Amino acid sequence: MGPDPAVAAVRRAVRAALAGLPADVPVLAACSGGADSLALAGALAFEARRAGRPAGGVTVDHGLQDGSADRAAGVVKVLAGLGLAPAESVSVAVGAEGGPENAARNARYAGIDTVAGRHGAVVLLGHTRDDQAETVLLGLARGSGARSLAGMPPAFARGTVRYLRPLLDIDRPTTRRACVAMDLDPWDDPHNDDRSYTRVRVRHDALPALESALGPGIAEALARTARQLRDDADHLDALAAAALREHGTSVDALARLPRAVRTRVLRDAMIRAGCPPGTLAAVHVDAVERLVTAWHGQDRVDLPGGVRALRRHGVLEFRTG
Amino acid sequence: MGPDPAVAAVRRAVRAALAGLPADVPVLAACSGGADSLALAGALAFEARRAGRPAGGVTVDHGLQDGSADRAAGVVKVLAGLGLAPAESVSVAVGAEGGPENAARNARYAGIDTVAGRHGAVVLLGHTRDDQAETVLLGLARGSGARSLAGMPPAFARGTVRYLRPLLDIDRPTTRRACVAMDLDPWDDPHNDDRSYTRVRVRHDALPALESALGPGIAEALARTARQLRDDADHLDALAAAALREHGTSVDALARLPRAVRTRVLRDAMIRAGCPPGTLAAVHVDAVERLVTAWHGQDRVDLPGGVRALRRHGVLEFRTG
Repeated sequence: MGPDPAVAAVRRAVRAALAGLPADVPVLAACSGGADSLALAGALAFEARRAGRPAGGVTVDHGLQDGSADRAAGVVKVLAGLGLAPAESVSVAVGAEGGPENAARNARYAGIDTVAGRHGAVVLLGHTRDDQAETVLLGLARGSGARSLAGMPPAFARGTVRYLRPLLDIDRPTTRRACVAMDLDPWDDPHNDDRSYTRVRVRHDALPALESALGPGIAEALARTARQLRDDADHLDALAAAALREHGTSVDALARLPRAVRTRVLRDAMIRAGCPPGTLAAVHVDAVERLVTAWHGQDRVDLPGGVRALRRHGVLEFRTG
Repeated sequence: MGPDPAVAAVRRAVRAALAGLPADVPVLAACSGGADSLALAGALAFEARRAGRPAGGVTVDHGLQDGSADRAAGVVKVLAGLGLAPAESVSVAVGAEGGPENAARNARYAGIDTVAGRHGAVVLLGHTRDDQAETVLLGLARGSGARSLAGMPPAFARGTVRYLRPLLDIDRPTTRRACVAMDLDPWDDPHNDDRSYTRVRVRHDALPALESALGPGIAEALARTARQLRDDADHLDALAAAALREHGTSVDALARLPRAVRTRVLRDAMIRAGCPPGTLAAVHVDAVERLVTAWHGQDRVDLPGGVRALRRHGVLEFRTG
């Protein structure tokens, strides 16, 4: 008899991720103790043993809840019990910048970076298809195009540390069933039911409402959309970078570009000129674009970060101060 | 004293649309009698008179509700009262193909085509930003990438008849206020509250849930997303068409393309080979793509419409029968 289908699915996903890594590179499962990352850790322990490769686990103590240190110690014990070595906890200090969710995430990644860097390890994250669907909806609220709907990338790097998300095609019920089948007892973070978090409202209110209006399979559709729009954004961003390198911000060259590329070149140029990316909205890009496509002698466009865009002698210039 | 701000906004939008049309081409407002298209008709009557250009109105009798002929006659009277000439009603027979919403839409457009064709007229449609947001969410359920999230185009043609949607940046409360200010009495279609329609559920349940999870401005963000993804899809589709023209389905050429373009070339080629577009899903494109990027001697891929994809002598072939 083979393993439970949920366990098999999670293991298969982890195996596929490991297949792309050199055999001697240690792999760490980042584990909160919740069902998703616990299933990930269990599958990593199994697959790494089978492949004879080094694998460990790391958990982060955010210090935000009473007893968080005890909980982190408990997770370390579970990770070690799975045969993962090292099995470590790292304590972080959560700041305030960018709101509580952002601050906690930034601190968490910084903590993981440190541990992974020390071991020269690749990190696996337990984000599922449901997390991805939530991220796409959160991006929808920004309304800033393909990149904001592209969700979380399946692979990325922070400094020298590589991160992978092997479970982006697995749904949350599967990780929970996998935990039960592997006899792992997941921790349910009370934050996950706190509706003061936007993500929690998206998870518990918006996604179910979308599903009941549009029919089942919304999370899957959102995750598929994310993957496709990521491909689109990658290629269009590359075309924009090439166009900016080759022609700069010559008005003639910009006018000849298709709009999908031109708006990206302009955004790129605005960021290089000093506009903080988070503050740039479609309305700014549109205003600068009109210096190219609807020029009737406009004086200048004021942009975030004290940057001004001007059209001078057939070139868009961006000035500060 | 100028006009009510809502009236001014609708008129400005109509004026911008008319500015792009030759002065002697007649323009017809398609009007259901609902607030959106009634505000459109009122604004068209005003702007056309001011510009001295011919403008009329057309309403469609779908014959689906008791008294629909009387209602159509009532709308014609209102249109004529606004000074629109011609002011006509056209009766259509609604079939069953593609579900009730699709069948009604197809019949409606066919009826408008006929009237507009007879007058050599351009047609204005009253879809608002809220309609656009709903359309994007409906596309999300399909999960088939940028094109399905691109919403309704601001301009399109059916045969020789051109259609414009001047109100895509105007929200529904504005058209309703404009009707009040223009002393026009909109008809509320009972279908608009019938939750057996997916669009009605999106309007009354899903969008409010999204808004309460993510904050105000969702309809606007969705409409902005639609516009940006339309630009993206237009350019990537054009790149794909050019790649298919130049290199056909040579495996080497396909392998060199960025994924965003390759998947579109494959979809294009599959449709040309006879796959019905509505039945093609990401899973089919992925399977055919693996003949290029993960080839290990697969025999063939069976596709909808009885089409088979095969890799032979370095070329993807699509066969039927």
